[in-house]
Amino acid sequence: MEPDAPPIMDGAIVVSGDRIESVGPREEILGGYTAEKIIERPTGLIIPGLVNAHTHVPMTLFRGLADDLPLKTWLEEHIFPREAKLTPELVSIGAELACAEMIRSGTTSFIDMYLFEDTICEVVNRVGMRAWLGEGLFDFPSPAFPSGFDALKETERLIEKWGDNPFITITIDPHTPYTCSPELLRAARKLQEHTGAYVVIHLAETLWEDMEIKKRYGCTPAKHLDNLGLLGERTIAVHVVHPTEEDISLLGERGVRVVHCPESNLKLASGISPVKDMIEKGIKVLIGTDGAASNNNLNMLEEMSTAAKIAKGVVQDPTALPAKLVMKMATTLSGESLGVDGLGTLKPGAPADVVIIELDSPHLRPCYNPVSQVVYCAGQGDVSDVICGGRILMEEFALKTIDEKELFSRLKRALDEFI
Amino acid sequence: MEPDAPPIMDGAIVVSGDRIESVGPREEILGGYTAEKIIERPTGLIIPGLVNAHTHVPMTLFRGLADDLPLKTWLEEHIFPREAKLTPELVSIGAELACAEMIRSGTTSFIDMYLFEDTICEVVNRVGMRAWLGEGLFDFPSPAFPSGFDALKETERLIEKWGDNPFITITIDPHTPYTCSPELLRAARKLQEHTGAYVVIHLAETLWEDMEIKKRYGCTPAKHLDNLGLLGERTIAVHVVHPTEEDISLLGERGVRVVHCPESNLKLASGISPVKDMIEKGIKVLIGTDGAASNNNLNMLEEMSTAAKIAKGVVQDPTALPAKLVMKMATTLSGESLGVDGLGTLKPGAPADVVIIELDSPHLRPCYNPVSQVVYCAGQGDVSDVICGGRILMEEFALKTIDEKELFSRLKRALDEFI
Ligand SMILES: [Zn+2]
Ligand SMILES: [Zn+2]
Repeated sequence: MEPDAPPIMDGAIVVSGDRIESVGPREEILGGYTAEKIIERPTGLIIPGLVNAHTHVPMTLFRGLADDLPLKTWLEEHIFPREAKLTPELVSIGAELACAEMIRSGTTSFIDMYLFEDTICEVVNRVGMRAWLGEGLFDFPSPAFPSGFDALKETERLIEKWGDNPFITITIDPHTPYTCSPELLRAARKLQEHTGAYVVIHLAETLWEDMEIKKRYGCTPAKHLDNLGLLGERTIAVHVVHPTEEDISLLGERGVRVVHCPESNLKLASGISPVKDMIEKGIKVLIGTDGAASNNNLNMLEEMSTAAKIAKGVVQDPTALPAKLVMKMATTLSGESLGVDGLGTLKPGAPADVVIIELDSPHLRPCYNPVSQVVYCAGQGDVSDVICGGRILMEEFALKTIDEKELFSRLKRALDEFI
Repeated sequence: MEPDAPPIMDGAIVVSGDRIESVGPREEILGGYTAEKIIERPTGLIIPGLVNAHTHVPMTLFRGLADDLPLKTWLEEHIFPREAKLTPELVSIGAELACAEMIRSGTTSFIDMYLFEDTICEVVNRVGMRAWLGEGLFDFPSPAFPSGFDALKETERLIEKWGDNPFITITIDPHTPYTCSPELLRAARKLQEHTGAYVVIHLAETLWEDMEIKKRYGCTPAKHLDNLGLLGERTIAVHVVHPTEEDISLLGERGVRVVHCPESNLKLASGISPVKDMIEKGIKVLIGTDGAASNNNLNMLEEMSTAAKIAKGVVQDPTALPAKLVMKMATTLSGESLGVDGLGTLKPGAPADVVIIELDSPHLRPCYNPVSQVVYCAGQGDVSDVICGGRILMEEFALKTIDEKELFSRLKRALDEFI
């Protein structure tokens, strides 16, 4: 039910509408309800749907396009020129591909920042996932909008357009402290005041960023955002690889949520985030994969494993970030941080975001501890069924809301023209 | 064919007996041969079988039994008491479970150190993998032998017994410099002189080991082994997390092979091995998972991904350990190090150790670069077919030489008594 609770052996869950109605021993449950549909998984492990707290979903289009390069070469010679040619059609294909991958690896919710975000909202709505989505704000023109202020207007429009949809929440997404002027950041803050929306921003990802912000504003990136009133309980700060001790205290005091993206930080060589320190200072740290171009996947099961292992290795303490805590970060803690009651738990009244992992494989045997098995052993091929808000997105390894064959052929046609 | 060679699109491989007969474009190959059996995989990627260069296969029995604990507690309270109760029957079940897991994740060869190794040889022989196997040598009694010298006698017997088997090679396995006296190490060295066998030893895994060896012998663990004549081209040193600069030079000069086990080193909080440095100094570094109790899996695809990413993050250089090099470490470089001509390549005359990865999944699309896809994206569920020495071990996701159902029920019965 929650990572701390003892697992229910031979259990069952009743879903009614978009909520969990009841959880308990199978015999009890089967006796107490009649069901329209029963999914039986004798060797399945039921967990809450995972929350991928940082993505750029259409970047699946660039997965493996260029690896193992210096950041500048990678961005300027490979990513930016392709992003400049992006269209809503391409974004839609990339986003749907990402949703297919995330569902197949047990993710039901995600927090995304990209371009043409309205198109991504449409995809998410069609596919049936739960998402927090924001149009990227930059000082310079993006492929989607001529200026950050235009993108901010779009954000306002999206908040209006998607306001009634219980699965889609619009966020305000200034890209970074160094790609957004203080004016743009202040305008973002103002929109947050009016709407109550979350602000999502990349923060303290690289040492270069740290130096650049110090040069421009005489303080660390975190302090700079605080000076602009941007640090608060509705701020989601992504990466935070290079905070100072004071930054950590500041983020803690302000109640900022931090998203840890260990594999992207390793692969792009940004460094290793002091997650254990931040958690000990009371910061709620979530886990995200970042985009598929810098990871190269959107697999939360793998990211959780990496998060748990790297934290131990880097501080040389094998008790750092135990599996239970990592499971919490990807489920209950994400739910609490996003303000959806019960999200990330399997309790009556919680959203029916339910994932089944098939344990009947050699790499998942024996199973002494289900949480350890999920964090350290389970992989993307082990997820058999996924339900989000009561809707079945995958059943017995087959996607129900995405036609993969058709998607792959659309992808192929689009890339033939694009790359 | 090799990680550096351009991939053959729409290719085919002819296997004859235990060797690769021919590799080339499909049309050409199909025209030139008639085959007893044809495996068609229109969206499959063919790679050489992976080499897992460090395992303790029966430790699958302890997978997830106790995680996130200090090393001493983990070993003394959880692992040692169980190992004391090990029997050949349990070792056989654990080894077969490990083989099933390794085949399912694309591994065809492995290097194993454990107890009751003859039993493991029997399992490997039955299952059809290729392995280098050694009975662990310790100063104290092991569950299998009253002393290290008895275990060394067993090693001699195994070299004799398995000498004619082309798939099984016996190694000489002193456990560590701190669990083996200089006398035992000298005896191991002597047996190596007589037989030409590889010596496999854990080396410089923890800072504690470093201190302990300095206290006892006044030098680093690597220098200590060198003083005893144990460093050479037929030495496989496992972990090497904490070498000094001089140690690295020494290992390089002696032609020692190092096995990098990044996930075990992280999870047990041993630290992060300076792999990039070692490779630059000319050391051949292979990749291993270590035992399932400290990883918690035997999945080389995951280990390769972690190896590639951690190397970049820790030295903050995104070009460190590119995917191609990691692929080499797990294939051609392993083959060269183990002295089997062509092992780890897909060339005429090479051993027919062939793995097919099914690319028709969202997380493997698009595919710009097959090597990047294998290292950064492919997971254990993507391996569809495995051939080792011309024998089919897995076909269309079904194991051919292991009855998983029967194995799982044997495992369940054994654990009910054991745990
Ligand atoms: Zn990002
Ligand atoms: Zn080991």
